[in-house]
Amino acid sequence: MTTTRTGDFDPAARWAAPDADAEPLVSESTRGLLTQVFAVDEAAFAAGSPAAVELAVGDSALPESARAALLAVVGEAGLSLDAPARAAHANGMSYLDLIRRSAAPPAAPDAVVSPADHDEVGAVLRACSEHGVAVVPFGGGTSVVGGVAPERGAFAAVIALDLARLDQLVGVDEISWTATLQAGLTGPRAEVLLGEHGFTLGHVPQSFERATIGGYAATRSAGQLSTGWGRFDALVEHVRVATPSGDLALGRAPGSAAGPDLKQLVLGSEGAFGVVTEVTVRVRPVPEERRHEGWRVADLASGLEILRTLAQRGPRPDLARLSDEVETAMGVATGGGGTDDAGGCLLLVGWEGFADDVARRADAAEAILRAAGATPLGAEAAASWEHGRFRAPRLRDELLGTGMLIETLETATSWRDIHALHDRVGAALQEALEGPVVVACHVSHLYAAGSSLYFTVLARRSEDDPVGQWSGAKAAVMDALADSGATLTHHHAVGLDHAPWLGAEDGALGVEVLRAVKRRLDPAGVLNPGKLLPPTER
Amino acid sequence: MTTTRTGDFDPAARWAAPDADAEPLVSESTRGLLTQVFAVDEAAFAAGSPAAVELAVGDSALPESARAALLAVVGEAGLSLDAPARAAHANGMSYLDLIRRSAAPPAAPDAVVSPADHDEVGAVLRACSEHGVAVVPFGGGTSVVGGVAPERGAFAAVIALDLARLDQLVGVDEISWTATLQAGLTGPRAEVLLGEHGFTLGHVPQSFERATIGGYAATRSAGQLSTGWGRFDALVEHVRVATPSGDLALGRAPGSAAGPDLKQLVLGSEGAFGVVTEVTVRVRPVPEERRHEGWRVADLASGLEILRTLAQRGPRPDLARLSDEVETAMGVATGGGGTDDAGGCLLLVGWEGFADDVARRADAAEAILRAAGATPLGAEAAASWEHGRFRAPRLRDELLGTGMLIETLETATSWRDIHALHDRVGAALQEALEGPVVVACHVSHLYAAGSSLYFTVLARRSEDDPVGQWSGAKAAVMDALADSGATLTHHHAVGLDHAPWLGAEDGALGVEVLRAVKRRLDPAGVLNPGKLLPPTER
Repeated sequence: MTTTRTGDFDPAARWAAPDADAEPLVSESTRGLLTQVFAVDEAAFAAGSPAAVELAVGDSALPESARAALLAVVGEAGLSLDAPARAAHANGMSYLDLIRRSAAPPAAPDAVVSPADHDEVGAVLRACSEHGVAVVPFGGGTSVVGGVAPERGAFAAVIALDLARLDQLVGVDEISWTATLQAGLTGPRAEVLLGEHGFTLGHVPQSFERATIGGYAATRSAGQLSTGWGRFDALVEHVRVATPSGDLALGRAPGSAAGPDLKQLVLGSEGAFGVVTEVTVRVRPVPEERRHEGWRVADLASGLEILRTLAQRGPRPDLARLSDEVETAMGVATGGGGTDDAGGCLLLVGWEGFADDVARRADAAEAILRAAGATPLGAEAAASWEHGRFRAPRLRDELLGTGMLIETLETATSWRDIHALHDRVGAALQEALEGPVVVACHVSHLYAAGSSLYFTVLARRSEDDPVGQWSGAKAAVMDALADSGATLTHHHAVGLDHAPWLGAEDGALGVEVLRAVKRRLDPAGVLNPGKLLPPTER
Repeated sequence: MTTTRTGDFDPAARWAAPDADAEPLVSESTRGLLTQVFAVDEAAFAAGSPAAVELAVGDSALPESARAALLAVVGEAGLSLDAPARAAHANGMSYLDLIRRSAAPPAAPDAVVSPADHDEVGAVLRACSEHGVAVVPFGGGTSVVGGVAPERGAFAAVIALDLARLDQLVGVDEISWTATLQAGLTGPRAEVLLGEHGFTLGHVPQSFERATIGGYAATRSAGQLSTGWGRFDALVEHVRVATPSGDLALGRAPGSAAGPDLKQLVLGSEGAFGVVTEVTVRVRPVPEERRHEGWRVADLASGLEILRTLAQRGPRPDLARLSDEVETAMGVATGGGGTDDAGGCLLLVGWEGFADDVARRADAAEAILRAAGATPLGAEAAASWEHGRFRAPRLRDELLGTGMLIETLETATSWRDIHALHDRVGAALQEALEGPVVVACHVSHLYAAGSSLYFTVLARRSEDDPVGQWSGAKAAVMDALADSGATLTHHHAVGLDHAPWLGAEDGALGVEVLRAVKRRLDPAGVLNPGKLLPPTER
């Protein structure tokens, strides 16, 4: 590969929010924690995020015939072979994505193609099928599972299909409380447009600042209010998908007995079956009232029992977030949540909606919390978390400069198994990683039958083989999840990283069903090679 | 066909409930309505249900090699070629099923095969695939869309695969509020078994007395409490399916981002992809309190507006049932609901669960109802409906003896379109059927974005061509549903009757995806030929 041009990709730019504040990301107390526990050298904090690493971008391998065909679809404005544009689409935002940049810089896609509408998306997919060019759909680029890695598969070239130009609010049905949104809209932009009608989507994943509506649908995104309002997959009433074999338009009523629910087959399909171009989702009026508050509970076990009561018996909160003992202590130590160091676990609950409904639910829950021995910490404990809630990814990026291993992973299981799973994942990480290891966890999505678990891991990064170090630990966790009956992922989707384990989730025959669907919709196999489906034996 | 043996099938037997009361099904007031509006002759009421018609059952066409293979799987106890057993599996319970019995008696299946467990189901499917024998899964036999019609497709023989022996409660997870139930359990039996643990499934379709857990799953059943508790498809946490190509075990957590939700591909698959043998569903403690009450609202429009408020703004009732003006008047006339003849529309709402939760929700809803001008009718109005709620199918069967056309059909759409759809379906039926036609309707399932519509049609049955009369009217309605953007069916599934319209629901490419899935799971094509998937062009 002749390296003729360079471009750089700045992770910070993916998170930059209009309201980014000026506080230092790495607080004094966080520095203290890292220097004490992990012996991080003070000087390392000056390194900053790995943004500065320059990406080597080789010549585009896009064949001239494919370039001409794509140009005919999207025009000059929609096709870029420039190094900076290609570098900006070279990877997602996982720990491995970021640390690999210095060790083994990723290959960039051979072009960035930006169709203007649904029909152009379909035409791009057909052109790529015909010319044997792989297609990686690209929304906000916030995948942490390799979902946007520019894998070529068996093809000579790969394009990033950037959906940024599909950025319209198509319409709001104010009677049915639904809105039709194009796939390239980011969360904040969708909220601005819906707000003009007095509505909100209220879907707030950690990646809110950059992730897109299409990405939410393609990855079954979960947001901070999903306990009350539902995961994104549960909000979708209708989905429009362009595939190399034609269009899908799925979902005709809020409930149906008309055969299998094909909508649920394209939700979570991660660009491997087609490209979501538009969704009609449930929205709600901008809440009259928001009431978020913190409580202290004795320990994880009693916190889980309270959450189970709220989820099953009700009233179910819209926001529920229980930190385990380690995360609670870390929050206190880093100033990222909690209000004192009295121990126990921090529980945040929140209620949003009409004032009378919020009052009714919050009051009933308060009685349950008090009866269970929880101590109220007031609104400040929640406000502190909310203030910093979108800073976590940027903080992680910043800390990578200090030579730390910092990553997150997540799962879900039944209430019966949740505590044992918490302990098992923690033990797997402690065993797989050497030296001091901090494993912090929170529960943030409640269902009647169980809940999610979201882990944050900190360790010293291996100098010899940082990629192997984390890959090994991650594999140990995935094996534990597969063995325990829990889901492989509750928040982050499958992508490249979880694909080898999909058989544990769906069974061998289930995977074969997915392959049959892919063959029908994407017969050339150009769509997002290597993602979602496990590698086939060769 | 040599008719050597006979068997008869008594529709009444399918509905017989342990608590069947001794009141006459056809009340004096119903007789009055029918004689007045439809000029039904008084003498016709003596005819009774068409149970008396004897079915001619030909010789079994099951090849000897297939018989031997099936015998090896299920043994003598699990295989019957007897005429009465075959006749009892010859049809479902639709209007056409029942009136066809005299005009053109259905072919019976060539054998009834009753496997004892999941593994035997799989072995039966493999044997039938190998020997080219079609398989019609059979639970309670309550399909009203031809779902259990013994269609042979391209094969020389067809068996009914009766799941009655899969009748165990496998287990209850009292922590996670889930239970694992075998497919052949009927609703009442499942409730008895769950009740021993203090739990209830609470799924109450009209066919409750006979329909089975497997049928609920295979047809995406909706029940009378689904507004609050969720449709059956929404209750399923895990599903186990036997297919000719192997087993599927789907659903590992209450929420997941691990790719497409394959569970939602087998729910509603109506035996065309495989046979559901076991489901793990959400259950809840037997309610501490039940509060059901009637209200009178001015008209359908104001009733819909009240339901929309309850569904979107909350508190959402567990039971919600709004009769339009015609159904309200008919209820009063036939003694089947309502308490007086003050006009307007009858609205039933119900709350079930923990006493404090019921009180909180019911009180808040009462305020909304009063503010909207609804008049309370008390608990009696609801009790009257509840008393008769499982008699409707038996009443219909009984009235078929009078020469009437009586059938139901149902759909769902958004709140924005619901009233117009109500009027459009009514008009299509009025136009398609001659003479006096009564079209009554109720709304019984609320969602945030819309609701169901359930129609009952009464007309004089054509003497020349009763099948053509209803087929034509039904086709006119299906065309209207397809054109209007509503779903083809909210309660009753696709079966044989709705299959030609599936392309309107899923699009041509969506249907192709379903075909691809079927080919992968059922390569020989033996599973439920003609059901779910539209006929292919030949």
